Amino acid sequence: MTVYFPEVEQVRFEGKKTDNPLAFRYYDPKRVVGEKTMEEHLRFSVAYWHTFVAAGVDMFGSAAARRPWDNLTDPMEVAKARVYAAFEFMEKMQIPFFCFHDVDVAPEGATLKETLANLDEIATLMKELMAKTGKKLLWGTTNLFSHPRFMHGAATSPNADVFAYAAARVKRTLEITKDLGGENYVFWGGREGYETLLNTDMKLELDNLARFLHMSLDYARKIGFTGQFLIEPKPKEPTKHQYDYDVGTVLGFLRTYDLDKDFKVNIEANHATLAGHTFQHELRLARVNGILGSVDANQGDELLGWDTDQFPTNVYTTTLAMYEILLNGGLAPGGLNFDAKVRRGSFEPIDLFYAHIAGMDTFAHGLLVADRLLATGELEEFVADRYQSYRSGIGEKIVRGQVGFEELSAYALDHDQISLSSGRQEFLEALLNRYILEV
Amino acid sequence: MTVYFPEVEQVRFEGKKTDNPLAFRYYDPKRVVGEKTMEEHLRFSVAYWHTFVAAGVDMFGSAAARRPWDNLTDPMEVAKARVYAAFEFMEKMQIPFFCFHDVDVAPEGATLKETLANLDEIATLMKELMAKTGKKLLWGTTNLFSHPRFMHGAATSPNADVFAYAAARVKRTLEITKDLGGENYVFWGGREGYETLLNTDMKLELDNLARFLHMSLDYARKIGFTGQFLIEPKPKEPTKHQYDYDVGTVLGFLRTYDLDKDFKVNIEANHATLAGHTFQHELRLARVNGILGSVDANQGDELLGWDTDQFPTNVYTTTLAMYEILLNGGLAPGGLNFDAKVRRGSFEPIDLFYAHIAGMDTFAHGLLVADRLLATGELEEFVADRYQSYRSGIGEKIVRGQVGFEELSAYALDHDQISLSSGRQEFLEALLNRYILEV
Amino acid sequence: MTVYFPEVEQVRFEGKKTDNPLAFRYYDPKRVVGEKTMEEHLRFSVAYWHTFVAAGVDMFGSAAARRPWDNLTDPMEVAKARVYAAFEFMEKMQIPFFCFHDVDVAPEGATLKETLANLDEIATLMKELMAKTGKKLLWGTTNLFSHPRFMHGAATSPNADVFAYAAARVKRTLEITKDLGGENYVFWGGREGYETLLNTDMKLELDNLARFLHMSLDYARKIGFTGQFLIEPKPKEPTKHQYDYDVGTVLGFLRTYDLDKDFKVNIEANHATLAGHTFQHELRLARVNGILGSVDANQGDELLGWDTDQFPTNVYTTTLAMYEILLNGGLAPGGLNFDAKVRRGSFEPIDLFYAHIAGMDTFAHGLLVADRLLATGELEEFVADRYQSYRSGIGEKIVRGQVGFEELSAYALDHDQISLSSGRQEFLEALLNRYILEV
Amino acid sequence: MTVYFPEVEQVRFEGKKTDNPLAFRYYDPKRVVGEKTMEEHLRFSVAYWHTFVAAGVDMFGSAAARRPWDNLTDPMEVAKARVYAAFEFMEKMQIPFFCFHDVDVAPEGATLKETLANLDEIATLMKELMAKTGKKLLWGTTNLFSHPRFMHGAATSPNADVFAYAAARVKRTLEITKDLGGENYVFWGGREGYETLLNTDMKLELDNLARFLHMSLDYARKIGFTGQFLIEPKPKEPTKHQYDYDVGTVLGFLRTYDLDKDFKVNIEANHATLAGHTFQHELRLARVNGILGSVDANQGDELLGWDTDQFPTNVYTTTLAMYEILLNGGLAPGGLNFDAKVRRGSFEPIDLFYAHIAGMDTFAHGLLVADRLLATGELEEFVADRYQSYRSGIGEKIVRGQVGFEELSAYALDHDQISLSSGRQEFLEALLNRYILEV
Repeated sequence: MTVYFPEVEQVRFEGKKTDNPLAFRYYDPKRVVGEKTMEEHLRFSVAYWHTFVAAGVDMFGSAAARRPWDNLTDPMEVAKARVYAAFEFMEKMQIPFFCFHDVDVAPEGATLKETLANLDEIATLMKELMAKTGKKLLWGTTNLFSHPRFMHGAATSPNADVFAYAAARVKRTLEITKDLGGENYVFWGGREGYETLLNTDMKLELDNLARFLHMSLDYARKIGFTGQFLIEPKPKEPTKHQYDYDVGTVLGFLRTYDLDKDFKVNIEANHATLAGHTFQHELRLARVNGILGSVDANQGDELLGWDTDQFPTNVYTTTLAMYEILLNGGLAPGGLNFDAKVRRGSFEPIDLFYAHIAGMDTFAHGLLVADRLLATGELEEFVADRYQSYRSGIGEKIVRGQVGFEELSAYALDHDQISLSSGRQEFLEALLNRYILEV
Repeated sequence: MTVYFPEVEQVRFEGKKTDNPLAFRYYDPKRVVGEKTMEEHLRFSVAYWHTFVAAGVDMFGSAAARRPWDNLTDPMEVAKARVYAAFEFMEKMQIPFFCFHDVDVAPEGATLKETLANLDEIATLMKELMAKTGKKLLWGTTNLFSHPRFMHGAATSPNADVFAYAAARVKRTLEITKDLGGENYVFWGGREGYETLLNTDMKLELDNLARFLHMSLDYARKIGFTGQFLIEPKPKEPTKHQYDYDVGTVLGFLRTYDLDKDFKVNIEANHATLAGHTFQHELRLARVNGILGSVDANQGDELLGWDTDQFPTNVYTTTLAMYEILLNGGLAPGGLNFDAKVRRGSFEPIDLFYAHIAGMDTFAHGLLVADRLLATGELEEFVADRYQSYRSGIGEKIVRGQVGFEELSAYALDHDQISLSSGRQEFLEALLNRYILEV
Repeated sequence: MTVYFPEVEQVRFEGKKTDNPLAFRYYDPKRVVGEKTMEEHLRFSVAYWHTFVAAGVDMFGSAAARRPWDNLTDPMEVAKARVYAAFEFMEKMQIPFFCFHDVDVAPEGATLKETLANLDEIATLMKELMAKTGKKLLWGTTNLFSHPRFMHGAATSPNADVFAYAAARVKRTLEITKDLGGENYVFWGGREGYETLLNTDMKLELDNLARFLHMSLDYARKIGFTGQFLIEPKPKEPTKHQYDYDVGTVLGFLRTYDLDKDFKVNIEANHATLAGHTFQHELRLARVNGILGSVDANQGDELLGWDTDQFPTNVYTTTLAMYEILLNGGLAPGGLNFDAKVRRGSFEPIDLFYAHIAGMDTFAHGLLVADRLLATGELEEFVADRYQSYRSGIGEKIVRGQVGFEELSAYALDHDQISLSSGRQEFLEALLNRYILEV
Repeated sequence: MTVYFPEVEQVRFEGKKTDNPLAFRYYDPKRVVGEKTMEEHLRFSVAYWHTFVAAGVDMFGSAAARRPWDNLTDPMEVAKARVYAAFEFMEKMQIPFFCFHDVDVAPEGATLKETLANLDEIATLMKELMAKTGKKLLWGTTNLFSHPRFMHGAATSPNADVFAYAAARVKRTLEITKDLGGENYVFWGGREGYETLLNTDMKLELDNLARFLHMSLDYARKIGFTGQFLIEPKPKEPTKHQYDYDVGTVLGFLRTYDLDKDFKVNIEANHATLAGHTFQHELRLARVNGILGSVDANQGDELLGWDTDQFPTNVYTTTLAMYEILLNGGLAPGGLNFDAKVRRGSFEPIDLFYAHIAGMDTFAHGLLVADRLLATGELEEFVADRYQSYRSGIGEKIVRGQVGFEELSAYALDHDQISLSSGRQEFLEALLNRYILEV
């Protein structure tokens, strides 16, 4: 059998002191943290498109990545080689899950029928390798943004034929996702938005987007797919404005169109910052609204205005993310999908390993810090104390709905010299550093 | 009687060709455009705080504005002088409405009781001058952000006494707004957000914000205030993150907390751009969701990251804003409030006139262009044509809910060679220029 | 002879009132404005890469553009068809100049030798068509950013072989530019920067960049190329940071490395805004430092963080640009090159015409407004008056270097109650609107 | 003697394991790192304005800070109390240096003469306390931005009287700085820029700014002040555009006006990010150009568009900053000045201690990590290896200036199949994490 990454043996946990760059320093899959193993907490997934398909292009540069299947030319042969390589990679990296878009894994044909046939063929191969290796599908999704037919939208296209075409493709991806035991299905609406309002019927587009999602649900139920449905917010890029701007906007959309019972969100760190939010903000907002479903684990560059999709290596970001995730009771059936790509200049196959190790270790470290933060309760206690006035007296009455403006006004006239407490931001930031540097 | 602005007579319409910088070139209040006069369309309002209270400070600079009441020192005397000056200004500028925060118009006292008494005294004077001049109150609002007691929030303060205090203040402003015949009441939550998630209970804060708004509604109904309730979205500044980030987020919040039947939004241009949206985007999103209530007419500097609150002088912005407003059937009972301040370097009283003239003329020009765009229908027709596929055939079935993924998939297999049309963005931008330059 | 754009006849001036979208409304090439014709003022140039090569891709979308040569497959045949189409397009659009990168016009070969041979063959064809049509080369440039070999830089590559390779390519492009009578040569350093400082020797890279530019100058002189050398600043994208960040930075670099006598800048509007500046700022800064050489005429979207390269349709931007250009005494030997691409959704050939018409008319309108602004002198007079204190008294002494801190201090102690004047920003913005809407 | 901060004893080093929030965990002043003590490396300075003067205002909020001198009302009494408090604070915090603006320390009088007299009186008190405590002045500076007279600029004011007034003030601050043994003098040009180009003569303003700086140098030499002169770049805020945008721009300005031999830069982290750069970028660019003089140690929020001036608590930022500083051979005579303010919500005096401890510990940690990075040389070695091609063969010839385009072209034709190496960004980011988490 072809070995695609001969330069790497299985990457194993060797602990903080190792000098081996091809070992984990924090990620120890079977180590128990709280009540679960690291593996169960983190539910890492490889993003098929970035790691096995992407060519290392950017808007000013052509394909730079070197991959073990570069010698092949027949598209289906390439596609199959990528499947074998993907399972070898997951095995060597100890990554239990993967995610894919339909046209990542199989080439588009001249007709829709051919496209679906290609897809089915590859899905069969995947299923076989999944059975053999125990690797699992975190989620499936449909690429409704790359082909020119989607230039003006898929579910929000001004052309009804495009809507129909998109439906056919999602239908098949749903079937395959079900067949492969996928635990979630994700919608990212890269073209569901507009370039200019001068040519856009926003109301019809929003209505159609909702119609499309309802149809998806209906069909999923019909075929017995019981996985979680997720929307992935992103504000812009490729379009000027995408309708699923951020968690707050998606929440409004879901509630407006009666979809809030059936959809959660898949939050990507870099999408959060493009929308002007921290990653933790988006996780928190989703969590307190009960819609935190899954995570696209990457990081952006806040000084750059596009989706850089970098591997997550910032310990603050992963600590605060894991803090929210632990408070969410974990992510399952969601997981942490590395929607991240090696830099164009990191073009060698071994960089794929370095990058995933960096990301996995940084998240594993974040898990350990977050777990310890919650175990000592120092932070939680500070917050509980800060809001204690809502647990008795006038505050309790407010929370219980026992007072209105008249009672409050009477109360305030007698209590208008209010004693405030510092928010202690600098103290808390130092506290966080203490935990991060001590784990 | 004291004349506060002796350097200016009433500003009148003189038409495009005038050289008089103290005349209107487009704003002709009684001119009929479509079925309403310009005055009825535009419903201009002066923002009391910027024009009669603000001192011309910035984060690095002390008070620079020169105002006719600078010689006064007693706070209540200053407050009264400002009221007289405000009505003189509105008269000279032909502006029919004004808006105020409670503590703009009257100084805070040592106690809440004193503060409310000061407020009542000034409100009485305002009422008298309103009766005399016919000027009207577009909306009232309560300043729940300047005083240190609100440093951690008002309705979202961790301290229940602050919540109660805020309630007392909103209660009184609601009463005064009703008494003055105010047509709207606005909530801008400048401190309703957080500085750091490390010390923040977001869920409790969001719940409390909703409780506060429900109490406001209850009290308003009780006292018979029938004006429109508005939330003004802003993403940040002064806080790191404000809960009313943008229209999409507010929509989600209103629906989550069952407030969507009773609240609309007051959209500010500069807040839109701080959130990463065009002004038109926010107007459109609110309009198609039925919550476009009123507008804070200003403009920001997209290259600067704070709320510059400049007077609106960009003809593109005002044209596209008026286009949305006309399609909304107008703004009433809302209006166009100049939430704009003269630059710190424009420190002379006459700059207040130049600035309002600039803003009013630019909006009046925008109204004329938008009206003509709608009258010829060139743009509307382009859009209707672009989406025509949803008015028959498979598209009509989609819109009517007559098909699902199975039917669409069958259709798509037979219709997979899709004919696309250009979005014609450059053509449409040239078209817009034609209208703007020809009015 | 093949006609590539049969759907369009020559685009002609028809004036403001025309309804013909394929006519000019402002651009009237032979109309005299001031002492030159519009054609001489504007020196329009088509950007070969965007208009004849670009495929309508974006980071999430594959080739969408439909072009008349799509039926061809042999790279050299395609290249030749594009040349013919380009000259037909320039003719029909009345555009006198074009600009190209070497590998825009000819396909790369398997070896450098082959690449240069391809280039020579196409250059010969261009020269022939230039002679036939009278079209001219505004500038040539070398693409040192698309191929993977440049992933870490060209002149700033850590690999000396890449430096040498880049030198060979620039050498040939210089020779061709000279041979075609090109009036300028442009360096845009899309890869001359870094992705991360962790792996970067900034000092060596900056030194090498300067060495490369000196070698270019030496070689140009040797072959007798007398055109103007230009650097095109851009802050980022594709790299994290590019050394030619903005005009101010380039100025520092040129002076540090003794290149300031021989280089000017080619300023792109969208690059300016990506660096946090207005287009006018960059033009002004270059102008007052004597290095304003040429312009890449496009516009960005200030709410998006990447180089959108849109056709310029904003009348404010073009007016203020032409104002600086007129004060610069024009741009020649530089010009206005449309470094702009039709939106991906504007994929039809006719959109290329609509887009160029929009850009040309907006600049022609800007020229007319700027000319009138300078003719009446209203703005210039305001500014002269504002700084008049430097033309007599203590101000004159300051400017003439006749005083130091001691004299000024003595003066200030006697003149510490300073009388200030308003900056009148709102008044001036209204004034600008008056000129823009009246031309 | 009045004790201003009775709640805090001297803050001492207790090591990583301490639970005491009023102890240092990393900052151990006398610990030797490399060849210097921590104290000598870090040269910490307290920023008088933020810590002893600022009132806790923001653009939407009034004074919130509680300070031990709040009970005083006479401005000179307040000023003196602050001096005593400042020296107590420095003593308790083990901070050896301070920095001030003239009008931070003393109130402005009705006349310039009075202002200078107030300043002299406070300076005398400072000198006395400096002698008593051994605390030192890192740098002095003059506030030429707060008073309305500077609304349009100081050295770049359109009014020559303002230029003269500014000169008088800088003259006196220079004298005092010299008298107090200040080691540097800083220019931050918060108003040296423009609000709109419509009213601005940029050329005259730039020339005048240079004239002002030359006069400063002349006067400093005359009085025998031998301290270092520094310019502090900032792109915007308070003005739309400031001339000292960033390090690259300042470098160009200094070289244009022949000031580059006499000025270095004082780099502020938050100013770097507002200009679109990382802090490390600005440090590196200054370092390799020989102008890295001093540092304003704070951090911004990259998702906010204004100068938040937060205390530095990010270990990545301080590590990479100290890495550049060590490679610069240290900062002396410059230092690390905490140009940082406690959040408005951190309004209690003890927050000043928490905040400085957080900042000092984070920088001390950064120093330890940076020292270890340089000690092992892992990173340096990677970089040296990456650029090795410039140390022999064709690369060495390039660096030595022995080849031109002709030789390089000949070489390239024979060496056009170039072997590239990965930039290894993800590997290096993981390496950095290893060092940060292990110190």
